[in-house]
Amino acid sequence: MARRKKIYEGKAKTLYEGPEPGTLVQYFKDDATAFNAEKRDVIEGKGVLNNRLSEYFMTGLQQIGVPTHFLKRINMREQLIRAVEIIPLEVIVRNYAAGSMAKRLGMEEGTPLPRPMVEFSYKNDDLGDPLVPEEYIISFGWASQQDLDDMVALALRVNDFLSGVMYAVGIKLVDFKIEIGRLYEGDFQRLIVADEISPDSCRLWDLETNERLDKDVFRRDLGNLADAYTEVARRLGVMPTNSAPLGKPTLIN
Amino acid sequence: MARRKKIYEGKAKTLYEGPEPGTLVQYFKDDATAFNAEKRDVIEGKGVLNNRLSEYFMTGLQQIGVPTHFLKRINMREQLIRAVEIIPLEVIVRNYAAGSMAKRLGMEEGTPLPRPMVEFSYKNDDLGDPLVPEEYIISFGWASQQDLDDMVALALRVNDFLSGVMYAVGIKLVDFKIEIGRLYEGDFQRLIVADEISPDSCRLWDLETNERLDKDVFRRDLGNLADAYTEVARRLGVMPTNSAPLGKPTLIN
Repeated sequence: MARRKKIYEGKAKTLYEGPEPGTLVQYFKDDATAFNAEKRDVIEGKGVLNNRLSEYFMTGLQQIGVPTHFLKRINMREQLIRAVEIIPLEVIVRNYAAGSMAKRLGMEEGTPLPRPMVEFSYKNDDLGDPLVPEEYIISFGWASQQDLDDMVALALRVNDFLSGVMYAVGIKLVDFKIEIGRLYEGDFQRLIVADEISPDSCRLWDLETNERLDKDVFRRDLGNLADAYTEVARRLGVMPTNSAPLGKPTLIN
Repeated sequence: MARRKKIYEGKAKTLYEGPEPGTLVQYFKDDATAFNAEKRDVIEGKGVLNNRLSEYFMTGLQQIGVPTHFLKRINMREQLIRAVEIIPLEVIVRNYAAGSMAKRLGMEEGTPLPRPMVEFSYKNDDLGDPLVPEEYIISFGWASQQDLDDMVALALRVNDFLSGVMYAVGIKLVDFKIEIGRLYEGDFQRLIVADEISPDSCRLWDLETNERLDKDVFRRDLGNLADAYTEVARRLGVMPTNSAPLGKPTLIN
């Protein structure tokens, strides 16, 4: 069997060359890391759940016209995606104060924010993905002002949609991060949602009890991570299966 | 002798009630602090130098039409200023990477930036004056979008002017911070430069040798702080004297 060419290996996923030009295979690992990989563990089944959940969210977004990199799920741990040029920013949308914002501003976690807030951190493990003002992004040429405006608009649409999905199953979408990639089409570029959307990249609290159903369970040793992710999948009716999804892959409009 | 009413005491300055409504007396102390006052010392003569230097820079800015709080110097350690409502932000302008930006982005200090960059930190000692995206400022209501645009424009004018002043005496203006206050005039507000402009609030490097002529001398134990500030004052022809400045106080246009 010919081995596939590995393109990139991250903390939680590996990218391989895809079957056709412009495609990649995204493999979800069971590795969990936090605090810039200072804390690490292997959570059996996490990769399977995130592969399925990311497919679920990306498919939903495409249905409302938010373009994403997702093409189709291949198997339990792999999905076919469009190859894009990742903009080196984490785009973070917050509805309630938590995590680094709560710490930075001395706010209690869970405090509702005056409006959904979009912020950016610079993707760089050596630096710990530092929060950066938009000024840094423009000045250092990581993205143009037009890109930034488009990214904010995209991120806010994702927030509205995901907030609705979560609301429907008794979950509060506290915050999440996405990554955005450039897709070149001739002389033009489009910005599309890339990477993944999963409980690894969202803060999800039970609406009633504020129970954490996301990676904070791992970060803060609050219980069993796989159980928390399974609970999210269960509420959404998204159970991991071994079969490829039915029907044709959803193409980007 | 009637004692003046103290309005506010900060780390390096004290504000007293002024002789007329809408005015304050700003007293420059010799106290030097760094790292959010974890490091502190008394540098004899620093207050005298900063009182004189801040007068010098503020007067120059008013002459190019940048409004400031400065009215007149009263004596060696005191100046009369307009009372304003301080916006709780440090407005930082950077021409070269240094300090927190260099650390945050892993850049070598002194690296020229692609353009003058304006950033904001939230004035809060308990939190260590954290860097904040503009999004935080607007969402939490610390300033409006219009205020921010005005602050950036004001800060860039100050940068152009101060860069010119420093260039003329062989000094590189690496970065500086200002504070901005609201001055209410009937139903309107104007934003004016407040606080101080001095080697406490600027990074100033000798153009040839990169010798530090600013508060980093104290922060990093690089030598005698008073000598460094005296060198700046000497180059600018601004020597502290006991006499009040000649002529009438410069009023804000």
